[in-house]
Amino acid sequence: MSKVLHKLFKPRSIALIGASRDPKKLGNIILRNIINGGFRGKIFPINPEAEEIYGLKVYPSVLKVPEDVDLAVITVPAVIVPQVIKECGEKGIKIAIVISAGFRETGPEGEALEHKIVEVGEKVGVRILGPNCLGIVNASERLDATISRVIDPSQLREGAIAFVSQSGAFGASLYSWAQGRGISFDKLISFGNMCDIDESDILSYLATDKKTKVIVMYLEGVKNGRKFLETAKKVSLVKPIVVMKIGKSAKGSQAAKSHTGALTGASAVYDAAFKQAGIIKAENTTEMFDFGKAFATQPLPKGNGMVIVTNAGGPGVAATDVCQDVGLDLVEIDENTRKTLKKIIPPFASTLNPIDTTPQVSPRVHGEILKIMLSLEKVHGAISIIVGSKPRQYAEEVVSAHLDLSKEFNKPVVLSWTADKSAEDLIVKLEENGIPVYDTPERAVRSMAALRKYAAFIEKRASTGK
Amino acid sequence: MSKVLHKLFKPRSIALIGASRDPKKLGNIILRNIINGGFRGKIFPINPEAEEIYGLKVYPSVLKVPEDVDLAVITVPAVIVPQVIKECGEKGIKIAIVISAGFRETGPEGEALEHKIVEVGEKVGVRILGPNCLGIVNASERLDATISRVIDPSQLREGAIAFVSQSGAFGASLYSWAQGRGISFDKLISFGNMCDIDESDILSYLATDKKTKVIVMYLEGVKNGRKFLETAKKVSLVKPIVVMKIGKSAKGSQAAKSHTGALTGASAVYDAAFKQAGIIKAENTTEMFDFGKAFATQPLPKGNGMVIVTNAGGPGVAATDVCQDVGLDLVEIDENTRKTLKKIIPPFASTLNPIDTTPQVSPRVHGEILKIMLSLEKVHGAISIIVGSKPRQYAEEVVSAHLDLSKEFNKPVVLSWTADKSAEDLIVKLEENGIPVYDTPERAVRSMAALRKYAAFIEKRASTGK
Repeated sequence: MSKVLHKLFKPRSIALIGASRDPKKLGNIILRNIINGGFRGKIFPINPEAEEIYGLKVYPSVLKVPEDVDLAVITVPAVIVPQVIKECGEKGIKIAIVISAGFRETGPEGEALEHKIVEVGEKVGVRILGPNCLGIVNASERLDATISRVIDPSQLREGAIAFVSQSGAFGASLYSWAQGRGISFDKLISFGNMCDIDESDILSYLATDKKTKVIVMYLEGVKNGRKFLETAKKVSLVKPIVVMKIGKSAKGSQAAKSHTGALTGASAVYDAAFKQAGIIKAENTTEMFDFGKAFATQPLPKGNGMVIVTNAGGPGVAATDVCQDVGLDLVEIDENTRKTLKKIIPPFASTLNPIDTTPQVSPRVHGEILKIMLSLEKVHGAISIIVGSKPRQYAEEVVSAHLDLSKEFNKPVVLSWTADKSAEDLIVKLEENGIPVYDTPERAVRSMAALRKYAAFIEKRASTGK
Repeated sequence: MSKVLHKLFKPRSIALIGASRDPKKLGNIILRNIINGGFRGKIFPINPEAEEIYGLKVYPSVLKVPEDVDLAVITVPAVIVPQVIKECGEKGIKIAIVISAGFRETGPEGEALEHKIVEVGEKVGVRILGPNCLGIVNASERLDATISRVIDPSQLREGAIAFVSQSGAFGASLYSWAQGRGISFDKLISFGNMCDIDESDILSYLATDKKTKVIVMYLEGVKNGRKFLETAKKVSLVKPIVVMKIGKSAKGSQAAKSHTGALTGASAVYDAAFKQAGIIKAENTTEMFDFGKAFATQPLPKGNGMVIVTNAGGPGVAATDVCQDVGLDLVEIDENTRKTLKKIIPPFASTLNPIDTTPQVSPRVHGEILKIMLSLEKVHGAISIIVGSKPRQYAEEVVSAHLDLSKEFNKPVVLSWTADKSAEDLIVKLEENGIPVYDTPERAVRSMAALRKYAAFIEKRASTGK
């Protein structure tokens, strides 16, 4: 399976079955995305009624392609898909993305058609991603094989996050949202109806993918619960899996069913199973990304000991509240360290934890305080809070004060920066350089807690061998 | 008291005691802010060692000012403040903002000094906001009387939200954050140590202020719990109060104490009391603003009946989950309405609720569906979900499809729009025109739930007369 999926993510050649000249057709959008993404392999558009599209030679059938094809991408109408899959098999293609809709999600007839493509695929040896999916992106291969019009294929940027989304359109728009914000997404996988390849197969593959540091999943339901949990239990030992599970409520479950036909289940059941499998649960869409970018960039904290360094009292208190809620400890600062701190911060600033430096302290000194604290053995991670981003020089100093901290100490650092619009480019710069930035102190703390939760899971599994 | 506070928010003249030429001094920053904000009243800088600052005549003492003064703003060192307050009284000034720090928050000596200024103030008839505060902003009076360097005084924009923040620096940076995003803040009030004027006094005044449609409070603790709850109970009948209460945890409470010396208390106690008083609780900083902008712009829903209209399945499911969590009902769509909908949406789109239009449907049609649903009596509000913001024309259509909806039907509409950076100006446009926009479906639904929670409180109070 892993070998086959390798051809999905790193194809040397793609046959696009249903390629079109009409800019409104999916078979055109996806072709443009593949070309504009800068895909370095070969592209074979298939369409019996065309000879050339965008300078590429068009073949009437995949069987007429004179070279080997690693991956088929299919956008033809649903009824033709079984025949196309058959031809793919004859051509020796091992894997196909079926973009086409009109299967299980539409009712009994579509469901029968979906069974048929699986049957044909099994017979001729073609594994299927989809149907009714958006496709995949693999930025490190400069591959945008999606029908998305919101992702900018010319802006693909290698990264450490693999994002698996059951909702194609939402997945693409979130990917695109992250693109402009310096968040290092690498892969997007939309698996639609999961008639064959399922979330567990994808998980197993991503566990072996060197680029992927964290797997973020947006799931409505899982196809095979036991398989998923067994797979997740193995994969979570290798890298973190962040899951946002929707369709938890009765009504939500019904809505999910009409959307992808997925089986959904009670929230409590999922919660318990996820926990056992070492899955980090995101409560909402915001957390899914917040946690993802923390895992993608930060080392894991080796314990619960935290320091909060803040330039304003209020958000320090808010962060302290959340630390207590999520089980992070604010370490006590010993007398010696306090003396050291007293030398560099104003007399009225607090050297308790949270260390409240007051707005008078420069970001450079703020950074020095972080360094003093991170060098202590009992401090396992730092939550840095900055309010304000003016003047520009101040904001630039915020960037340089944080840039290399987590690397230098091999400890996680998260930054809550309440900045105004003028500093947005600097936030992107920090994100691109591996410092996760959050709008609010609560989000920063919860992300740190997710890191610690995963670290504790790994430690426990290592000590018990289970 | 209300008359006195009128002079705080709408002074015709201000004496700035401690005005300075040195750009690093608070007495300079605040003077620049007042000038750059475009304050239309008179400004009297007070400083015994200067004759003119920024073309304004400087007086050696407030007693030497030849005209009436409505408001004193004091930035002199703490030890001189009692004497200055005394002079204010002699001059007939009824209210002073004490910016200066070095009082209760610094220990027993500072506490004694704080008692002294209260004592002097009472004796000579001067009410005090502060000390150790940032000052106030009142955009509709073009008044920025703060020491903030992050708020842009030239960009004050009238609005419907009054933001009361115990944390000055955080408050200012949040205000500034909102400034660039089209969110209609009007007032910012930082009350610091609350030696005299407290959160209840401010609440009572804001209840009478015509500009203010919603009061958003960031509180570490309240000075006088009983007074606050009694005041809130009255005020909440007139306008909504959204409170984010920090310092809930034991450690957080300790941190708050070292910050402003405020008394804090157990979370559960506050929760129960807040509920009784009709206060809408924000769980975190994000919600505080999310709810604030919903109340500032939307009519209240007259019941729990909601419709979700979405162009992507996934976020529709996520929104449905949250609706169930927060007690909002998705209305059943009757056969007739479904027939009407079927005429304008594709055959494969869902006419159940959530109405999943699929990405193929244009924002114009999305807007038509919202209109059809909002015109039904049993629909009390709409949650609109759009993923994607490309191409530009599409994004512009999203704006026009939503602009006047809530006004036309006098029902609340919230929009979850997962847009990329290129659409940020359009989001600002929507916000400025009274449509609250959220990054994620969960945040949109929770904001709608806050509106409904307040509406239910008002209905209950009206029916029971309590």
